[in-house]
Amino acid sequence: MPHISNKGLKMPESPIRKLVPFAEEAKRKGKTIYQLNIGQPDIKTPENALKAVKDNAIDVLSYSHSAGFESYRKKLAEYYRKNDIPVTAEDIIITTGGSEALLFAMGSITDPGDEVIIPEPFYANYNGFATASGVNIVPIQAKIENNFALPPISKFEELISPKTKAILLCNPGNPTGYLYTKEEIEQLAQIALKHDIFILADEVYREFAYDGVKHHSIMSIPGLEQNAIMVDSVSKRYSMCGARIGCLVSKNQEVMAAAMKFAQARLSPPTFAQIASEAALDTPQEYFDEVIKEYTFRRNLLVEGLEKIEGVKVAKPKGAFYCMAELPIDNADHFARWLLESFEIDNETIMVAPAGGFYSTPDTGLNQVRIAYVLKKENLEKALKILEAALKEYNKK
Amino acid sequence: MPHISNKGLKMPESPIRKLVPFAEEAKRKGKTIYQLNIGQPDIKTPENALKAVKDNAIDVLSYSHSAGFESYRKKLAEYYRKNDIPVTAEDIIITTGGSEALLFAMGSITDPGDEVIIPEPFYANYNGFATASGVNIVPIQAKIENNFALPPISKFEELISPKTKAILLCNPGNPTGYLYTKEEIEQLAQIALKHDIFILADEVYREFAYDGVKHHSIMSIPGLEQNAIMVDSVSKRYSMCGARIGCLVSKNQEVMAAAMKFAQARLSPPTFAQIASEAALDTPQEYFDEVIKEYTFRRNLLVEGLEKIEGVKVAKPKGAFYCMAELPIDNADHFARWLLESFEIDNETIMVAPAGGFYSTPDTGLNQVRIAYVLKKENLEKALKILEAALKEYNKK
Ligand SMILES: Cc1ncc(COP(=O)(O)O)c(C=O)c1O
Ligand SMILES: Cc1ncc(COP(=O)(O)O)c(C=O)c1O
Repeated sequence: MPHISNKGLKMPESPIRKLVPFAEEAKRKGKTIYQLNIGQPDIKTPENALKAVKDNAIDVLSYSHSAGFESYRKKLAEYYRKNDIPVTAEDIIITTGGSEALLFAMGSITDPGDEVIIPEPFYANYNGFATASGVNIVPIQAKIENNFALPPISKFEELISPKTKAILLCNPGNPTGYLYTKEEIEQLAQIALKHDIFILADEVYREFAYDGVKHHSIMSIPGLEQNAIMVDSVSKRYSMCGARIGCLVSKNQEVMAAAMKFAQARLSPPTFAQIASEAALDTPQEYFDEVIKEYTFRRNLLVEGLEKIEGVKVAKPKGAFYCMAELPIDNADHFARWLLESFEIDNETIMVAPAGGFYSTPDTGLNQVRIAYVLKKENLEKALKILEAALKEYNKK
Repeated sequence: MPHISNKGLKMPESPIRKLVPFAEEAKRKGKTIYQLNIGQPDIKTPENALKAVKDNAIDVLSYSHSAGFESYRKKLAEYYRKNDIPVTAEDIIITTGGSEALLFAMGSITDPGDEVIIPEPFYANYNGFATASGVNIVPIQAKIENNFALPPISKFEELISPKTKAILLCNPGNPTGYLYTKEEIEQLAQIALKHDIFILADEVYREFAYDGVKHHSIMSIPGLEQNAIMVDSVSKRYSMCGARIGCLVSKNQEVMAAAMKFAQARLSPPTFAQIASEAALDTPQEYFDEVIKEYTFRRNLLVEGLEKIEGVKVAKPKGAFYCMAELPIDNADHFARWLLESFEIDNETIMVAPAGGFYSTPDTGLNQVRIAYVLKKENLEKALKILEAALKEYNKK
């Protein structure tokens, strides 16, 4: 029997997937599980986006332009310009999710063996894209004690080697919810320019900034145009994860020309989803106002609830919809599995994401979990009660 | 300014894209262009597929399973079983087009520096996927004189090295239209087993087999289960290129487990498109009967027309909807551009795909073009007239 590649062997398993069989088994037994483990919002997709798909007049569902509909790119560029991101349709390639944009970016700027510096904890699938591209991730640790703020710039400089091609930043952060300040972004820009490397900014949660704090895009920094690459997505912004539309944005024409060749090889992004995404750009501001209000409420509820639980330490998120919490336990993998297999209140339990998978440094964050506040009030409240009772019982053993 | 990767530099340009600016310029000048250069059918997408999308009841457009809807995979497995491909839902991963299935397959079975043997001429984007994966393509030449039949097995064996991981086969072939015989498939299976390598079969044109000839899938060969990987797609079968749905199929669990990790990293295939694709499986047989009748008619028209033109040699395709023709010229790149820039009859011209880009061996097929018979009768007839007149005028110079 012929065997798979080393790459295939090395591809990381998602940190959450390991728990799935236990969750399925619990469901089979009739347990209700509050899913705090994934970034799948329960928020409704904007009506106009769904309607546009229903109203489509397609009779031959043909390939679109490899960079996506021109009409969509133009309208998207307008959206960016309104958000202080001075780009045109030519600076945008529509991709199949932010996921594909990350792959195109890595393929365009790195060769196997190259390095990308990423503040950890980070979105676990960066590991998969890096492995697929043969790239080595060099982690730089952000600390829960500092709310996961950017590590000191001197630490970045220590890690930059001739193989370093980029710093990858998630802003606001998944899993940390950290929203980088203007000063932090500017400091990063300085080292990118000094060392002639790229800043690859994953800004898929841009719209999710709370407490009236402004999001600062890597694309808004004058002088950084040739070094800045942004990844974006409609998945979270419009609760349209299943559309699979994102984009790669840069003013660096060499990068865009290379990315375009990756885009052409796979022909085009999905057509129905582009129709939905283009229409979604007309979503009224009230939709976002309500969504932000709802998430702010949920965040406050969750963070305040967590802070009240004995032994729990929590970093207050300023953006996205995740929160990292340190629990009074040794091994979150074991605890998360135990929650599904052996714990219940009135036949209900919770599913959380053990944070180890969000760190690249081995044996780090083992007592941390990521909690997504994608559930409504009543369910979050129940989930908090379950967590509190579970920690008590778990620590009795 | 930081620079792109070697991979980015090496990514091949699609052989057709080079002509696009000239086509656009011609259109701007008001010329009508009959596009024989791309595999975008003019056939209508089945009603039921389009209707399913219009009738969707989605309110939160969420991620689907990374392997695709279970209901779709089950129904798809039934379709395969009816087509002598004995697989179950577990042997299928739904992908974003056949394109993504090719990428997953390469990532799962090859490491940078590995080799894949491909009969040339071949689908040009194999070059892009190979470059993206760091894989070297080892071409083995099929000849127009033999209608592009499989080269002798001894030739394959000469090319197999310790780095060879797979033979990639396109059946029926793009650009050749060649449909492999049962004997050819069995011979390939023998060398795959003997040398412990994979056969990766791109069968996206399976349904397009003419003259009552049966298509033989690599998945139907007893004993080859662990070596066989199939790539499929709804793009051409249902004229649903813009859906972006395909799949990877194998009974080799190691391969599927690795591919699944690539699938999880990118989260899920597009939801609307899966709805359309699942519904498309109910397309009545009459749809295909008509489509096959139409393509057979077009093929006959095209091939007979080409054979009548002085100096043109053509390989009669038995499947897909492309035809390779040798023209009485030296350089098809130049001729194709000249057709767009300098030739017209009543302000009309044609666009063909120069075949050089379908060969991996340099300076091969320079006097060949690929012609897609995706246009209706009247337009194909006009296109043939234009080609005949153009060759006369071109060769006068
Ligand atoms: C930080 C981050 N980046 C990128 C993605 C990819 O999302 P998509 O491919 O749906 O756009 C996600 C999804 O959860 C994410 O959290
Ligand atoms: C031989 C072959 N394989 C794969 C593909 C990819 O098609 P898709 O990604 O639309 O499924 C094509 C498209 O033209 C093709 O001709």
